Amino acid sequence: MLNPIQIQYSQSQETSNQKTKRVYYFGKSKSEGNKEMKELLGGKGANLAELTSIGLRVPPGFTITTTTCADYNESNQQLSEVLMDEVRENLRLLEAETDKRFGSESNPLLVSVRSGAALSMPGMMDTILNLGLNDNAVEGLSTVSTNRRFALDAYRRLINMFADVVMGISHTLFEDEFDRIKSKHGVTQDADLSVGGLEELIAAYKKIYREHCGQEFPQDPYQQLEQAIEAVFKSWNIPRAVSYRQINEITGLRGTAVNVQTMVFGNMGEDSGTGVAFTRDPATGENRFFGEFLINAQGEDVVAGIRTPQPVQEVLNWRKDIYHQLLELKRILENHYLEMQDIEFTIERGTLYLLQTRTGKRTGQAAVKIAVDMVSEGHITETQALLRVPANDLNQLLLPTFNPQAERDGLTKGLPASPGAASGRLAFSADEAVDRTHNGETVLLVRKETSPEDVGGMHAAVGILTSTGGMTSHAAVVARGWGKCCIVGATKIEIDTSSRTVKVNGRIFNAQDTLSLDGSTGEVMSGEVATHEPQLTEEFATLMEWADRYRKLNIWTNADTPADAQRARQYGAEGIGLCRTEHMFFEGDRITEMREMILADSHNERGRALEKLLPWQREDFKKIFTAMQGMPVTVRLLDPPLHEFLTHDEHAQRELAQRLNLTPQRIKARTDQLHENNPMLGHRGCRLSITYPEILVMQVTAITEAAIECAQARIDARPEIMIPLVGTDQELIQLRRQVENTIAAVKQAKDFHDQIKIPIGTMIETPRAALTADQIAEHADFFSFGTNDLTQMTFGFSRDDIASFLPEYLNREILAKDPFQSLDTVGVGQLIEMAINKGRANKESIKVGLCGEHGGDPASIAFCHKVGLNYVSCSPFRVPVARLAAAQAAVK
Amino acid sequence: MLNPIQIQYSQSQETSNQKTKRVYYFGKSKSEGNKEMKELLGGKGANLAELTSIGLRVPPGFTITTTTCADYNESNQQLSEVLMDEVRENLRLLEAETDKRFGSESNPLLVSVRSGAALSMPGMMDTILNLGLNDNAVEGLSTVSTNRRFALDAYRRLINMFADVVMGISHTLFEDEFDRIKSKHGVTQDADLSVGGLEELIAAYKKIYREHCGQEFPQDPYQQLEQAIEAVFKSWNIPRAVSYRQINEITGLRGTAVNVQTMVFGNMGEDSGTGVAFTRDPATGENRFFGEFLINAQGEDVVAGIRTPQPVQEVLNWRKDIYHQLLELKRILENHYLEMQDIEFTIERGTLYLLQTRTGKRTGQAAVKIAVDMVSEGHITETQALLRVPANDLNQLLLPTFNPQAERDGLTKGLPASPGAASGRLAFSADEAVDRTHNGETVLLVRKETSPEDVGGMHAAVGILTSTGGMTSHAAVVARGWGKCCIVGATKIEIDTSSRTVKVNGRIFNAQDTLSLDGSTGEVMSGEVATHEPQLTEEFATLMEWADRYRKLNIWTNADTPADAQRARQYGAEGIGLCRTEHMFFEGDRITEMREMILADSHNERGRALEKLLPWQREDFKKIFTAMQGMPVTVRLLDPPLHEFLTHDEHAQRELAQRLNLTPQRIKARTDQLHENNPMLGHRGCRLSITYPEILVMQVTAITEAAIECAQARIDARPEIMIPLVGTDQELIQLRRQVENTIAAVKQAKDFHDQIKIPIGTMIETPRAALTADQIAEHADFFSFGTNDLTQMTFGFSRDDIASFLPEYLNREILAKDPFQSLDTVGVGQLIEMAINKGRANKESIKVGLCGEHGGDPASIAFCHKVGLNYVSCSPFRVPVARLAAAQAAVK
Repeated sequence: MLNPIQIQYSQSQETSNQKTKRVYYFGKSKSEGNKEMKELLGGKGANLAELTSIGLRVPPGFTITTTTCADYNESNQQLSEVLMDEVRENLRLLEAETDKRFGSESNPLLVSVRSGAALSMPGMMDTILNLGLNDNAVEGLSTVSTNRRFALDAYRRLINMFADVVMGISHTLFEDEFDRIKSKHGVTQDADLSVGGLEELIAAYKKIYREHCGQEFPQDPYQQLEQAIEAVFKSWNIPRAVSYRQINEITGLRGTAVNVQTMVFGNMGEDSGTGVAFTRDPATGENRFFGEFLINAQGEDVVAGIRTPQPVQEVLNWRKDIYHQLLELKRILENHYLEMQDIEFTIERGTLYLLQTRTGKRTGQAAVKIAVDMVSEGHITETQALLRVPANDLNQLLLPTFNPQAERDGLTKGLPASPGAASGRLAFSADEAVDRTHNGETVLLVRKETSPEDVGGMHAAVGILTSTGGMTSHAAVVARGWGKCCIVGATKIEIDTSSRTVKVNGRIFNAQDTLSLDGSTGEVMSGEVATHEPQLTEEFATLMEWADRYRKLNIWTNADTPADAQRARQYGAEGIGLCRTEHMFFEGDRITEMREMILADSHNERGRALEKLLPWQREDFKKIFTAMQGMPVTVRLLDPPLHEFLTHDEHAQRELAQRLNLTPQRIKARTDQLHENNPMLGHRGCRLSITYPEILVMQVTAITEAAIECAQARIDARPEIMIPLVGTDQELIQLRRQVENTIAAVKQAKDFHDQIKIPIGTMIETPRAALTADQIAEHADFFSFGTNDLTQMTFGFSRDDIASFLPEYLNREILAKDPFQSLDTVGVGQLIEMAINKGRANKESIKVGLCGEHGGDPASIAFCHKVGLNYVSCSPFRVPVARLAAAQAAVK
Repeated sequence: MLNPIQIQYSQSQETSNQKTKRVYYFGKSKSEGNKEMKELLGGKGANLAELTSIGLRVPPGFTITTTTCADYNESNQQLSEVLMDEVRENLRLLEAETDKRFGSESNPLLVSVRSGAALSMPGMMDTILNLGLNDNAVEGLSTVSTNRRFALDAYRRLINMFADVVMGISHTLFEDEFDRIKSKHGVTQDADLSVGGLEELIAAYKKIYREHCGQEFPQDPYQQLEQAIEAVFKSWNIPRAVSYRQINEITGLRGTAVNVQTMVFGNMGEDSGTGVAFTRDPATGENRFFGEFLINAQGEDVVAGIRTPQPVQEVLNWRKDIYHQLLELKRILENHYLEMQDIEFTIERGTLYLLQTRTGKRTGQAAVKIAVDMVSEGHITETQALLRVPANDLNQLLLPTFNPQAERDGLTKGLPASPGAASGRLAFSADEAVDRTHNGETVLLVRKETSPEDVGGMHAAVGILTSTGGMTSHAAVVARGWGKCCIVGATKIEIDTSSRTVKVNGRIFNAQDTLSLDGSTGEVMSGEVATHEPQLTEEFATLMEWADRYRKLNIWTNADTPADAQRARQYGAEGIGLCRTEHMFFEGDRITEMREMILADSHNERGRALEKLLPWQREDFKKIFTAMQGMPVTVRLLDPPLHEFLTHDEHAQRELAQRLNLTPQRIKARTDQLHENNPMLGHRGCRLSITYPEILVMQVTAITEAAIECAQARIDARPEIMIPLVGTDQELIQLRRQVENTIAAVKQAKDFHDQIKIPIGTMIETPRAALTADQIAEHADFFSFGTNDLTQMTFGFSRDDIASFLPEYLNREILAKDPFQSLDTVGVGQLIEMAINKGRANKESIKVGLCGEHGGDPASIAFCHKVGLNYVSCSPFRVPVARLAAAQAAVK
């Protein structure tokens, strides 16, 4: 579901003795708006005014207010004279400031006209460029640019755009005409059409215009402007825009602003240029100006990745003055926004203009470094820094990197667009990457360049390699956003998509060959290179330290092995919230004993099989307790249905029969007998302990014996026993009694008389447990929410079976997110809150945690903080994410 | 879970100037207690006092109070002299009243000593009979009874019982001795032992007593009494009794009373006798004295069914005076208790004693007739009558009876112990009946007589036939309690359990032959006799009329066919709360079209298959709407997962492939693709309508077309559309829109412009739907609780899979009842209440019902009444049960 977006709209009311201001100027002479005025000037208008007012050189212009648009649409849809008077007044100011004149034959002022509401809103009229050109002005542009081809091209673009956007004439009519004239002149590329061809094209465009509008293309620039403004106003109410606002529940907005802004050109010669840059390195976070530029080019040339641009540092060698202006721009923007910025700039004949600035996308590593650096630079506070790093992005820092000791068969180097270490086979198209990944292969997407339609394949691949494009090309930007390993501009690589091969330095690789990409160095290597655990940075440690200082939630981990426990502890886990015992039974020979136990006919037989499992369990627990010494280890008693331990494979059944000296029929019969229609709702969890008490006794014995042996070795073991899938207090009462009796019996048998405290708690994972948490709390030392099962039962969704309808549910926005990824706070969360309140009402001291997979999801963690859980438990690799997310929830 | 039983115990406090009364007498001369004094005198003592005080001849005696027991146990465990003084005083009164003397050589007074707390409580000391006998008194008894054997037998029983119960000597010692002496005298039956043998036995018993107690069996009857009283007091605190009170949370009781009562004997000669009787016919409810008696016999001889007794009316021919006394007893008891009574009586030498009276068990038919008759007789009110009939028992009235037109191959007649019509094959033991029923057979249990260990087999069988025993024999009483067809005392039947045959009138029937029993006439017939719908009695109609007058809940029905709808309407249903559409697809050829639809590759193909199903659905709906005209018919859209309509049988798959012109591989592949791990939580319910909207469109089209055709035929059709398994408001919003659009489109296509109102509602059957019922209510015209699924998801129990642990859960009292039989009011009920409150808070007018199987369960209906549902919907046969249960909930 979409969150309703409600904008509090303060209606400006015109009092009788006060003139309504309809137009706000931004430029060197004055800047009438600021960033707070989004409702009145729209987002774009407010930002342009803000940038201008802090002294940055933005192409000057003016903004017509959103209320003007509302008045227009709500009255008689006529532009009032008072408005046009104000527009003309502002235009005059613009002419004065730019020293250009609207419609001038010698030095014409050209403007862009754009819509811009308080919220970004697709569907409305977009952009008209080059407005102000006419048959005379085009000559003036030709003169000042000393580039007739450029001027004619600008003019034919204006006619096309104006006809399409303002007059609603089909764009294909113009395209067809363009094709006809190109073919007549024997060229295929737009850029190759001669001046003569362009003149012919302009005449043909005007003819189309005349034939479809019954009038000439307007030569009066003021008429062009008036019609463009009206077109923007009207676009507010076109069906697509109206339905967008309805769907997104955008209410309180009454209209769009109109931005009229001077055109600047980076392609006016060798003293012009254009570029994009980040104020810091978006891959590493290093505080250095980072970007690319092209001399005598337009902005789209850089982004499209067609011409390989130069690093922005090269500006120094081209125009030292401009370079220093850029550095100053960086300084001002960071001081103003206190954030790393992603800017677009253009140099028109030696004058630097800032076209756009926004918060820059970055990798997780960069986000951490920038946040920590900005604190030490005095820009932001620790709590602000904590909020700056998207918690999920920390995962990128924990990804393995190539082992520097490993041998590398280096092939070439490209630009290190996004760090990481990726090895995979070669996929040559996005679809191929998706399909092969789906079939279980690990692939790299290898492309000359990427475009938006490749996004699916880019996401599927473990790494991306392109032969062209720079650090701000499509592939680079998208990959960094995801923290996915990416190398771009590896120019020595020749990709042949027809033979599906990659040629580099005389060597040829096909789809089945493996390459490795080092996203931190740009190195491309043959074969798979060994990885090792990441080296965590100092900034990471600092950020984690701050997180720990602010967070209220404890962060525990889900770990079933000593190795996992060790790793989680290293990442900052403060306990084990879920130690699953079932995985232990699959190791080595144990599965045979486990099967013998399941196949047993009587309590006694079952007991004998369990006796063989006991020493293994005890040793497992000892190692885990030792790894976590001084911290709680919550052991969950056996949970899955017994049939999960059996095999349906006939051969394996025969083999097992031989080993256990049983008939294969016997094994098949028992396997069939244990079959369940809905195993998720079947004989599992504490239901096993009720019907097979000897399993519980074995497990509790193993835990207690391990604890005693640890105590004797002076290891501070802190086991806790967790009973799964409880739905009634009686289950807990009876099983708790059995656990306590077993602990006492083991102590007596071992002649151990020191105190060992083993808290006994329960999972809350059936809705009924949540509903009766008050009764259950009386017999539990702690609650742990098993949100995987709780989500399954609350929705009635089998996690294994939702693939057939979940995509449709997300598409149709029936669900905003997969509820198994991010906690459903409305439904499942309601049960959680209820259980906490009921539980604490009956036992104030009860410890409450969560150990479903949601424990590693930042949005879910924020909820856990809000409702007052004591801890969340997540997989070892998510521990840092959880620590940060918990801190963010606390400081928000 | 057990309900905690809390008895408010008003502690009697002895004030300094008031003597505590420890013993309460009941007898002709005075009766000091009454039925209100259960706390002080125990249940048994209070009742004996009550019966005595209303003038009935009960063997006189006295009761020692429960507080005396408490004092004994809480102080020094010494019987105080003041107590024994009171006991002796009361004994003297007893001697005077009975004209017998304690320990007398000529006419000895014998008493029984029994415990009796305020609540029946197994585990405490039970009964000592014949107390007061000693070596002298036994001679007196011999003289007065003129039956030395009887007197000696009574004496040896006392020694045995006293040694066992009071002194704790093992009972087997006495049994072994008895066996030894029987064998020495060459007899096998106890009753065959001669007078000499009994004398020998008494001597041997005394020897055992002496050897184990170190003292002689007490000859002083006062000492016997003193020791017996102490034993009762002490038994209050034996571990078994203490733990019983703990488990059942019985608090507030401080001790047991002791009842000392004169012994009477029905076996003192031809002027003695014993019997049991009901004040009305427990099978039909007819107002006639109904029972059996035996001359010169003890009570257990009647109940055990060993001697076939005479009907109680025969007392008239034996002793006219006694018969009139019995009729007077009936009158007094019914006037006093205002209920049909089940009495035990004994005639000792011409004097009639009432030994016990309690509310009599009866069949459902009898319960209805007695309740209605008692209202017309002025005994009780209508609301009392409504509460008198256990709602579930009405089911018995709806059982089919044999069609009187059907041909009957009559074999013999027995006693019509419990009405009904049963046909089945012959099972010769209880175990056999259980096993064969389990394997799907329908069997009659055929036995010479039954005993408590046969109860399982009696329950499994559809009917019970015995060759001995009377109307109050074990088989008759138990069968009537269940409303199960039973014929007893069919003396012409010879049962041979070794050859497993039944011989009757020269014909032989074996285990595979079928007999039919008419429980209303006692007729036993060969073969299966056709049944027909039951003829409902006038009393039933009267009771239902009263129920309808008092109940608040509407009673709807779950019906999928016109026949079911018709039947339910006849039983008083006021609408259809659940019309499942899936069953309609299994009829005849439709399943092929359904499979074609499921196997379709595209929306179009699917649409074509659905078009073939449409006319069938429309006709089904038309017939159901017509059957229910004027009443709502709630149609649930398709609910089960599609794979339920496919077959896994390879042969059937091949056949289907041929019919649909597809490859068998294709069918197998699609079947496998649709397989789900947990289908209960899978792609079903409204999830089908989201992903296959064309199914919804077909169904809604069929409903709307049927409604239009009904309207055109002036039939008042009232369809409602119910969307299953909703978990989010968005599902309902989107599907409701689709339903509304479809209805509008059908109306337009049919050029039908009159209004048809089709309310659209949802099932509440996932916990999330209940939790978000406020949001869902905004888009629903009604809610219907699907408590089957809601129970599954709230507990996390798959109904199909609980058999492996539910019995253990019930045994261990983790669950008090199967939650699929009777609503779990604590957990599931909490969600229901929440949903009602949230739903009505957002839409006060919303109609709320329940259509799970709980809709026919009286306890669940009481809950539904309490939480304010508008209706419950149950299977047609449960409709009368539900009507009565709803009325009971309302008047309680």
